[in-house]
Amino acid sequence: MKRIKTAIVGASGYTGMELLRLLLLHPQAEVVAVTSRQEAGRALGTVFPRFAKAPGAGMVFTQPAAEALAAAGVEVAFLALPHGVAAEIARPLLERGVRVIDLSADFRLREPAVYEEYYGQPHPAPELLAEAVYGLPELRAEEIRNARLVAAPGCYPTSILLPLLPLLRANLLEPASIVANSMSGVSGAGRKADLSLLFCECNESARAYGLPKHRHLSEIEQELSLAAGAPVLITFIPHLIPVTSGILTTTTARVREGVAAEAIGQALEGAYANAACVRLLARGAGADTKHVTRTNFIDIGWQFDPRTGRVLLLSAEDNLGKGAGGQAVQCFNLMFGLAETAGLQNF
Amino acid sequence: MKRIKTAIVGASGYTGMELLRLLLLHPQAEVVAVTSRQEAGRALGTVFPRFAKAPGAGMVFTQPAAEALAAAGVEVAFLALPHGVAAEIARPLLERGVRVIDLSADFRLREPAVYEEYYGQPHPAPELLAEAVYGLPELRAEEIRNARLVAAPGCYPTSILLPLLPLLRANLLEPASIVANSMSGVSGAGRKADLSLLFCECNESARAYGLPKHRHLSEIEQELSLAAGAPVLITFIPHLIPVTSGILTTTTARVREGVAAEAIGQALEGAYANAACVRLLARGAGADTKHVTRTNFIDIGWQFDPRTGRVLLLSAEDNLGKGAGGQAVQCFNLMFGLAETAGLQNF
Amino acid sequence: MKRIKTAIVGASGYTGMELLRLLLLHPQAEVVAVTSRQEAGRALGTVFPRFAKAPGAGMVFTQPAAEALAAAGVEVAFLALPHGVAAEIARPLLERGVRVIDLSADFRLREPAVYEEYYGQPHPAPELLAEAVYGLPELRAEEIRNARLVAAPGCYPTSILLPLLPLLRANLLEPASIVANSMSGVSGAGRKADLSLLFCECNESARAYGLPKHRHLSEIEQELSLAAGAPVLITFIPHLIPVTSGILTTTTARVREGVAAEAIGQALEGAYANAACVRLLARGAGADTKHVTRTNFIDIGWQFDPRTGRVLLLSAEDNLGKGAGGQAVQCFNLMFGLAETAGLQNF
Amino acid sequence: MKRIKTAIVGASGYTGMELLRLLLLHPQAEVVAVTSRQEAGRALGTVFPRFAKAPGAGMVFTQPAAEALAAAGVEVAFLALPHGVAAEIARPLLERGVRVIDLSADFRLREPAVYEEYYGQPHPAPELLAEAVYGLPELRAEEIRNARLVAAPGCYPTSILLPLLPLLRANLLEPASIVANSMSGVSGAGRKADLSLLFCECNESARAYGLPKHRHLSEIEQELSLAAGAPVLITFIPHLIPVTSGILTTTTARVREGVAAEAIGQALEGAYANAACVRLLARGAGADTKHVTRTNFIDIGWQFDPRTGRVLLLSAEDNLGKGAGGQAVQCFNLMFGLAETAGLQNF
Repeated sequence: MKRIKTAIVGASGYTGMELLRLLLLHPQAEVVAVTSRQEAGRALGTVFPRFAKAPGAGMVFTQPAAEALAAAGVEVAFLALPHGVAAEIARPLLERGVRVIDLSADFRLREPAVYEEYYGQPHPAPELLAEAVYGLPELRAEEIRNARLVAAPGCYPTSILLPLLPLLRANLLEPASIVANSMSGVSGAGRKADLSLLFCECNESARAYGLPKHRHLSEIEQELSLAAGAPVLITFIPHLIPVTSGILTTTTARVREGVAAEAIGQALEGAYANAACVRLLARGAGADTKHVTRTNFIDIGWQFDPRTGRVLLLSAEDNLGKGAGGQAVQCFNLMFGLAETAGLQNF
Repeated sequence: MKRIKTAIVGASGYTGMELLRLLLLHPQAEVVAVTSRQEAGRALGTVFPRFAKAPGAGMVFTQPAAEALAAAGVEVAFLALPHGVAAEIARPLLERGVRVIDLSADFRLREPAVYEEYYGQPHPAPELLAEAVYGLPELRAEEIRNARLVAAPGCYPTSILLPLLPLLRANLLEPASIVANSMSGVSGAGRKADLSLLFCECNESARAYGLPKHRHLSEIEQELSLAAGAPVLITFIPHLIPVTSGILTTTTARVREGVAAEAIGQALEGAYANAACVRLLARGAGADTKHVTRTNFIDIGWQFDPRTGRVLLLSAEDNLGKGAGGQAVQCFNLMFGLAETAGLQNF
Repeated sequence: MKRIKTAIVGASGYTGMELLRLLLLHPQAEVVAVTSRQEAGRALGTVFPRFAKAPGAGMVFTQPAAEALAAAGVEVAFLALPHGVAAEIARPLLERGVRVIDLSADFRLREPAVYEEYYGQPHPAPELLAEAVYGLPELRAEEIRNARLVAAPGCYPTSILLPLLPLLRANLLEPASIVANSMSGVSGAGRKADLSLLFCECNESARAYGLPKHRHLSEIEQELSLAAGAPVLITFIPHLIPVTSGILTTTTARVREGVAAEAIGQALEGAYANAACVRLLARGAGADTKHVTRTNFIDIGWQFDPRTGRVLLLSAEDNLGKGAGGQAVQCFNLMFGLAETAGLQNF
Repeated sequence: MKRIKTAIVGASGYTGMELLRLLLLHPQAEVVAVTSRQEAGRALGTVFPRFAKAPGAGMVFTQPAAEALAAAGVEVAFLALPHGVAAEIARPLLERGVRVIDLSADFRLREPAVYEEYYGQPHPAPELLAEAVYGLPELRAEEIRNARLVAAPGCYPTSILLPLLPLLRANLLEPASIVANSMSGVSGAGRKADLSLLFCECNESARAYGLPKHRHLSEIEQELSLAAGAPVLITFIPHLIPVTSGILTTTTARVREGVAAEAIGQALEGAYANAACVRLLARGAGADTKHVTRTNFIDIGWQFDPRTGRVLLLSAEDNLGKGAGGQAVQCFNLMFGLAETAGLQNF
C-alpha cells in the first residue's frame, strides 16, 4: 500500500515532537515535510536528538508554506501551531486539496462569538467552522472519516468529555452539579522560554491556574451541552503538577434522583466496550497517569458515593497522546480508512 | 526563661523528623527524649544525618515508656504514632501529669462510633474524648491554651477547614454543594517500605486514592458541621502527586442565593486578618505549594465564578508543616503561653 | 513467518516490565508464558495496567517451572531474576532445549572465583560458564548468534564498555587512569519495598553507593581486560539520582603519549559507524539521558582535554533499555536470525 | 546590639532569594535595601510570596545605586549579580566605605589574565584583585575577618576544594590524577528564561555540560595550586540533574606511594574537626544531598580503594547554601565579629 504523504506544520514544540514520534514510524504514513519558523534549515535529528536514527532524521525543517507543501504532494497536514496562526495556513492548505488536522483551538468551537470571548480575538476563518469536525473519535468517528478539516480536541477536554458524555446522553446526571478537577504535566504549557515553566518553578510545586474560565472550558461546555441537549455550565479547575506529561482528571456530579449506581457503569460500558483507545476500569478502581503516558489510551474509572449522591469519574491520559498527538493520529487513521490504532500500538 | 522539657514519641517517621527540625531549635523547648521502637539505641544524628550537628544530635532513641518520660521531667509529649498506638501511651502520660499533643487521629473525633466507622476498630480510649481539643489554633486558641490533651488536625482537614469554616459560620455557602480536591506530597503517606510509595511508582504519576471515604473525611465533616450548625456531607478527593511535601487543595461550593462575592473576602479577612500563620492572597491570586513548604503558613486564595455561582477556594500548606508538625508546635506555643510563632519563623 | 515462542521468567519487576513492553509487540515473538512467584495466578493486564489492552494482556502469571515452559513449546526464555535464582532455572531450561537469555549476573563472569568474590556465594552452575556468551551485540554478534546461553550485560557495564572497548583495543589509553562515574535512575535498583527507594528518600537527593567495589565492576574489568590484552583495574563510582530510568556515564582516561585526539574519534567511528543501536555524537556534543529513555540506543560523545591529556567519554542509555531489556531483545534478534532492531524501533 | 545594616544587590534570582531567606531572620543583620533592575518598584513579599509575612516583606526593590545604598547607612552589601556587573558596583560601594561580599566570579581569581581566559572579557576592576579575599571560611577565616572585599567561592569549587585542600597541603595525593565529578541542582543555572532549563528539559534528564573547561575550573585550580605549592591541573566534569538544589561531588585521586589510608582521615580530621559548617562522615559512609539542602553544611566522606590506590572523596552541599548564600553569610559573620553560624542554624 502506498503510504500517505503527511506534513507536520509547527513541529518544533512538544506536540510536534509527539506527532513525529508517532508518524515517523506509522506503517501507513510518510512524513514528507516538517516546518518550523524557528528551526527552518536544521535537520530533524539535530533539533530532536531522540530521533537521530529514526527514518526521516535527515529531513530538514522548512518555513511553513501551503504552496510548497501542496507541491510536495502532501495529502494531509497536521497543524501544531498556536491558535490564530493555525487558521491562517489551514485555509490555503484546504484550498489546495490538502486535508487538515488542526491541533490548535481554531476550529473546535462552533460559534465565532465564543471563540472571541475565550481567545480574545475575532475568529480568523469563520467560514470554515461549519465544516470543521470536532475530532473526538469515540464520539464522531463517522464525521471524522469524511472530514476535510478536523479539529483535534484539547487535552483537558478529552479527559473530561469522554467520561461525562455517555452519562449526559443517558440523562443520568444533574448537569449544573458538575465539577471537574484536572492535574496536568508541564509539557501541556508548551515548549517556550517562560520563567514560570522553569524546572525550579515547577518542581516541588502544585498550583491551579486559568481560573475561573480556562480557554478549554469553551469547548468542554459546547460538547457537554450538545450531549445534554441543553446548555451546560460547569466548574473546571486545571492544575499544574511536576510531571512531564499526563493528565489526571477527577470529575464529580450529582446523579439524578432515582438513577441506580449501576446505570453509570452500564452507560460507560455501552459507550466504550468496543472503543479501541478507552480502557474502562473496574468500579472503584483508580486511574493513574503512569499507566497511560506515551500511549493513546484514556483510562476511565468510576465510583458512586451514596452519602452525597455523587458519581466520581476518574480519567487518566497522556496530554500529548490521547490529549493531543495520539488522538490526532487516531483521527488521521479514520480519515484515511486505516485501522483505528494503526501506528498507536505503543506501550 | 527555663525551657520546657519536651518528648517526641515515635520520632523516626517524616512527621517525627519535622517535629525534630522545629523543636531542636525552638528557643523555649528542650527536647529531652526521643522514642522509636525501631531505632531505639541509635543516636538521633545517625538516624537523621540532617541533624548530625544540631543541638541534641547525640541524644539516643529510647523505647516509648510513659513512666520513663515522666521520670525524666517531660512536661509535654508530641505523639507521632499510628492511630490506635497513640491512645495507648497518651493515657499513662496524662495520668503522670504530662500534657499531650497527639498527631494521630485518635483524639480528633468526638464520637467513638465515627472513629470506629472510619478507622475500623473500637476507640481505644473513649473516656478521653470529652476533654481532647481539636487543635486548630485559628479556631480554638482559647481551648488549646488550657488543654491537657490536644489532637493536632490531619493534613488534608487543615487545608480544607481553614478556608471553609469562616464561610460556613457566616452562612454564605450551600453546604451540600461542597467539593474538595486535594493533591498531596508523598511524605503524607508516611515513611514505610511500601511498593506503591517507591520513587518509580510515584514519579511521573498522579492518582486519586481512598475514595469515596478517606479517613480524614470524618474530622472534616465533624468540624464543618459544627461551624454550619447542621450536618454537612461533602465530597473529598485526595490525590498523590510527585512532590515530597506540600498539599494544594481546591474547594468549590455554591454561594447562597443573594450573597455578594465580596462577602467571601470579608469573611476570610474577618477570620484571618490577624492570624499569624494564615496568609490571605489577593482575590484571584493563586496558591502554590512551593511558597509554603517548610513553613507553618497556609496560603488561602479565592475567586468567584458568576457563571456557576460557585466560589473557588485555593489553599496551600506543607503537609508536614501547617498540616502536621508545625501546627502541633503552634499548639504547643499556645499551651505554654509562648508567642504563637515561636520556633516557627522559618522560610 | 511463524513467531518464536518466548517466555519471560520473573516478569513482575521493572526489567520484566520492559521485556513485556518490547516483546508483546515484537513482530516475530510470541510471548506464551510469563512467570512470577509473587504474581502467579494474576492476569498480566491486572499486574501491569499499562498493558491492559496489549495483545496477551489476558495471559496469567504462572509459577516458574522449566518442565512446563518446555512443554508449552517455549523456544527461548528471558530470565529477569535475581542472581543465584537465575542459574537454577537456566540449567533445566537448557537441558530441555530452551535457549536462555539471562539478565542476571549469573553467567556474565568467566571465573567462578570472581563471581564468588563479588556476589558472596559459590557459583551455582560453573559448568555452564564456558559456553555462556556475554551478550554485548556490538562486540560479539557472531557468538551471540550461535549461543544457547546469553548473559545480557549489566546496565552500568554497557554504558562504560561501549565507549571504552574500541579505544582499548586500539591501545589509545592508559588503562590504569580510567575513572568512570555513572548516574542511574532508581528503576535500576529494582522493584522492591525498601525504605531507601521511597519517593521521599530519592527525590531531591543524589548519592553515590556501592563503593569502592560495586558488583558490576567485576564484569567491567573482565571485558576491559580482554580488550586491552592485559589486566585492567578501574575506578567506578555509581550514583543514584531522581529519575525513573536512564544512565549517564562520564568516563575519563589519559590518552597514551603521542596519540592524536583524532584517533579517538576514528576508533569510535570504526567500531560503531554501522552499529544499529549506537549513536555517535559529534566531537564535543553532550549526551543526555532524555534522548534515549525507552529506546535501545546508547548515545556516545567524546572530547579531548589537552590541558590534562584526558579523553572525556559521555554515554547515555536507558538502564532498562540498552542497559537491560532492550539489549536482551537485540540478542534475541541475533540468536534467531532476525533484523537486529526488530521490535526495537521505538522512540 | 545594633544590627548591621545590610543590602542585597541583585536580589531577584535564586541566590538572592537564599540570601533573603537567611538575612531577613538573621539576629544581627538588618536588611535595609534590596535591589533589582527587573523588580524595582515591587514589594519583596510580592516578588517572593514565600516571604510575604517575613519581617521586611513590605520593603520595595530599588534600582541598584551605590550612592543611595551608602546614604541609607548600608555597612555591607551582598552582590548577587552576573560577573562583570558585580565589579561595576563593587568599586563605588567600596569607595563609599561599604564592605562588599560578592557572590559573582569577579573577585575570585588573582590573575586578570585567567579571568579573561575563562570569562571572555578583560577584568573590569583589576586594581581590586590584590585586596579581595577568596571567602572560604574554613581556609581563610583570618583574612575574611579583616577584608573589605570578599569573593564568595563558586558552588562547585566549594564542594571540590574543601575535601581536597587538606590532602594537598599534607602532600598525600598525586595532583595530576585528580578527577572531580559533580552533579548539581538546576537552581545553580540561575533564574532565567532559557529553554534548556524548562521543567520538561530537565526532568528525567541527566547531562554533562561546560566541558572541558567549565568556568569554575579557574578558581578550583588556583586554590588547589596554592595548597599544593605547585601548579595543579585537574579534570572537572559538572552535570545537571533534576533536583532543585544540592551538589554532590565525587573526587578521586591517586594517593602518593607510601601514604597510609589512615592519613587521609587524619588530614580531614585535622582540618575540620572543629569546623562549624563541615560534617565529616565516618570512613566509608556516603554523602547525600538530601541531608544538607537548605543548610550551610557540607558533608564530607571518604574511602580508600586499595585496588587502584585511589581515594574517593564524597561531598554534599546545597549549591545555594554552603555553595553560595550560606557561605556568604558565614563570611559576613566573620567580617563583623559574630558567631560563625549566626543566622545559619537551620535544618
